[in-house]
Amino acid sequence: MKPVPLSGFRDFLPGEAMARQRMLDRVRHVFERFGFAPIETPAVERLTTLRGTSGEEGDSLIFQILKRGGDLQRALTEYGSDGMTEHLSETGLRFDLTVPLARLVAQYSEEIPLPFMRYHIASVWRAEAAQKGRFREFGQCDVDIVGSSSMVADASVIQLIEATMLALGIDRFAVRVNNRKILNAMLNSVNIPDTLHIAALRSLDKMEKIGRQNVLVEMEQCGVPLQSANELLLLTDKARDGGLGALALLEDRAGVDELTQTLGLVGHLVTNPERIAFDPAVARGLAYYTGNVYETTLLDAPEVGSVMSGGRYDKLVGMFLGRDVPAVGVSLGIDRLFAAAEGLGLTQTGAKTPATYMVAALSDAQVPYAANVANALRDAGFSVYLFPGAGDIRKQLKHAGALAIPQVVIVGEDEAATNAVTVKDISTRQQVRVTLAELLRS
Amino acid sequence: MKPVPLSGFRDFLPGEAMARQRMLDRVRHVFERFGFAPIETPAVERLTTLRGTSGEEGDSLIFQILKRGGDLQRALTEYGSDGMTEHLSETGLRFDLTVPLARLVAQYSEEIPLPFMRYHIASVWRAEAAQKGRFREFGQCDVDIVGSSSMVADASVIQLIEATMLALGIDRFAVRVNNRKILNAMLNSVNIPDTLHIAALRSLDKMEKIGRQNVLVEMEQCGVPLQSANELLLLTDKARDGGLGALALLEDRAGVDELTQTLGLVGHLVTNPERIAFDPAVARGLAYYTGNVYETTLLDAPEVGSVMSGGRYDKLVGMFLGRDVPAVGVSLGIDRLFAAAEGLGLTQTGAKTPATYMVAALSDAQVPYAANVANALRDAGFSVYLFPGAGDIRKQLKHAGALAIPQVVIVGEDEAATNAVTVKDISTRQQVRVTLAELLRS
Repeated sequence: MKPVPLSGFRDFLPGEAMARQRMLDRVRHVFERFGFAPIETPAVERLTTLRGTSGEEGDSLIFQILKRGGDLQRALTEYGSDGMTEHLSETGLRFDLTVPLARLVAQYSEEIPLPFMRYHIASVWRAEAAQKGRFREFGQCDVDIVGSSSMVADASVIQLIEATMLALGIDRFAVRVNNRKILNAMLNSVNIPDTLHIAALRSLDKMEKIGRQNVLVEMEQCGVPLQSANELLLLTDKARDGGLGALALLEDRAGVDELTQTLGLVGHLVTNPERIAFDPAVARGLAYYTGNVYETTLLDAPEVGSVMSGGRYDKLVGMFLGRDVPAVGVSLGIDRLFAAAEGLGLTQTGAKTPATYMVAALSDAQVPYAANVANALRDAGFSVYLFPGAGDIRKQLKHAGALAIPQVVIVGEDEAATNAVTVKDISTRQQVRVTLAELLRS
Repeated sequence: MKPVPLSGFRDFLPGEAMARQRMLDRVRHVFERFGFAPIETPAVERLTTLRGTSGEEGDSLIFQILKRGGDLQRALTEYGSDGMTEHLSETGLRFDLTVPLARLVAQYSEEIPLPFMRYHIASVWRAEAAQKGRFREFGQCDVDIVGSSSMVADASVIQLIEATMLALGIDRFAVRVNNRKILNAMLNSVNIPDTLHIAALRSLDKMEKIGRQNVLVEMEQCGVPLQSANELLLLTDKARDGGLGALALLEDRAGVDELTQTLGLVGHLVTNPERIAFDPAVARGLAYYTGNVYETTLLDAPEVGSVMSGGRYDKLVGMFLGRDVPAVGVSLGIDRLFAAAEGLGLTQTGAKTPATYMVAALSDAQVPYAANVANALRDAGFSVYLFPGAGDIRKQLKHAGALAIPQVVIVGEDEAATNAVTVKDISTRQQVRVTLAELLRS
């Protein structure tokens, strides 16, 4: 039964896993430096929690989990084929970390003081077509500020995007920002009805990916009048060229005011404000955004799309709590970024082990002494691979080479009798005999 | 839509999440110090990978994932109700990290030099009845040595159990060891046929939990002759009292030899060999073990059961690779241990945030200066919560109190004009005005 890889899912061998972990450690460090506190939630949520929070787009992403012991035949007779699915499954894998956050804030509303600045680093699952750089399971690193409607929260989130990217050694990136209230005002101004807003925004959001003509076709397919669609794209062009000032004619000013205030603060908060700019075509796919939205792209790998995105969602917590709680946040897609970093040569994935020493015993009798040597090196702070076996020193040295462990500490009868070791440098092939005390001092 | 918790699943609010993360960081540190390298694999595996590796017990633990877009009505007509389940699902959530390891070693056999010492820290899911301290989703920290049949590997794994528990601040624990070959020889010696071995072992394994009489009842229900069951328990008693020496009459000596050699090495490798002892009733539930098996229990919380268990499984990799590769490993159940540590007061879960400073602006105009102060403190290595908003200083101070942030740095017009800050100690309620430079030096 030779294993066949599952499309859209990825294994990480040690070199990749260590590099990915280094990235995650850095991200976590930045998040904590900004005062965000971690939470953990289950991978599995009720379908009633997951559904209807993020629009059809969100619903279609859910991997449902089969209920055990359900009577399929009876369910089919009683509920028909749709109802049976309900009967088969009442939970699913989370497709983001935002919906579980909203559920958590509602569930523990008595215990969580607001504003709640939390981070969450975990996997999410999306039942969509796998493609290069797009996975069905991937890690997300989310920071959110729940319980503040202040644009200071929005600006802090953008500052955190900059700090995170810089901590990952990436300085060639752009943060494009927009505001759903601006987009809604634009849609209203060209007479696109409310019921078509989400569909129109999802098409607009694909501008860079599928091009202007296809956006128009898509919008028309959704029922947007061609004239309105054309006017919308012209307005978008105008705003792209002229900035927020070009939107002077919009009747509803709330979005323009929010974004102006946010960008004003951002100018003070970040080290390089030139990386952050208004882009009227940024919309974000999910339905729950209500204010500013953010996307971060890599200048040297724009084809991977947005690596750190988010926005303000002032109504989502209210879906669970019964009263609105404003919230804003951003999510780093660690696996998309990691794939990009591998492609750009920004990360080293060649290591095979964390060990810097291997300890090799020449025969079984020296294993206890070899273990003592290994323990002494570990106590001195080194990562040490004690070869699980003894004898055949050539095999052990070859293995050290295969794992790129730089130093092999060899112990035989002589060494054990004199508290000494023979240290072999794998690259120079030179070896010296020293006392254990000397080794620990080196 | 007030959220209802899912039975068997757990949320971690910041205090718990931070304490759990501290435990995981320590575990990871120990694993790396011993030269184990990390891997990551998907949560989702093919059912063909998961099934049949671990016996019926394993199969019944699988949470299956619903295939999207399946035509249920057609499937039912064509395949009947059993076949339809196949049609509905071809993947499931992993129930351990050992089966994915075996799959990975087979899949990347060309790229992974053996012996492969890897660790894996991740969640697993088990579709079983939820009960106190037993979760349906929980974290496991696994170390395994693949590709060595030497008892040095077994002894190293036991040494690692000791090192891990000590690193977690736990010194009152016992490691009970046994060997499947010994158990099989015992079963043979009392004439229990091979086909009933796994069932008999699963019952024997429950001795501590359900008691002697119930073990006998269970064995009889599985078809084990009462006389054989009685003889087995008598032999177990004898071995418990007399140690491995009491098994002198067993015909097949392989297991006794393996365990004797392992315990001999362990005596040299661990700091306190008295914690490790042979227990003839330890069997482990899953079918794939072939040699030594290990269980670790907390002396102060025996009721939580085994927190770090494992053993040797020399046939599992072969199920995927077509040729046997010996392997041995152990798994720490972090959530069961964390629950126990909470119960024993071994872990602090009272913190609400990693922040040691909150920066509070008296009005919007001081937000940029407040952000500068926050950034300067962050650069100095502190975790800083910049209040996402401004004004109402009483509200901000109350929030700092609720989050137990010890120091609040207040900035108003005066402070901003003079590069100063007012620092308020939340517990003493004293406040002092100092320059920003003085704050950073403090």
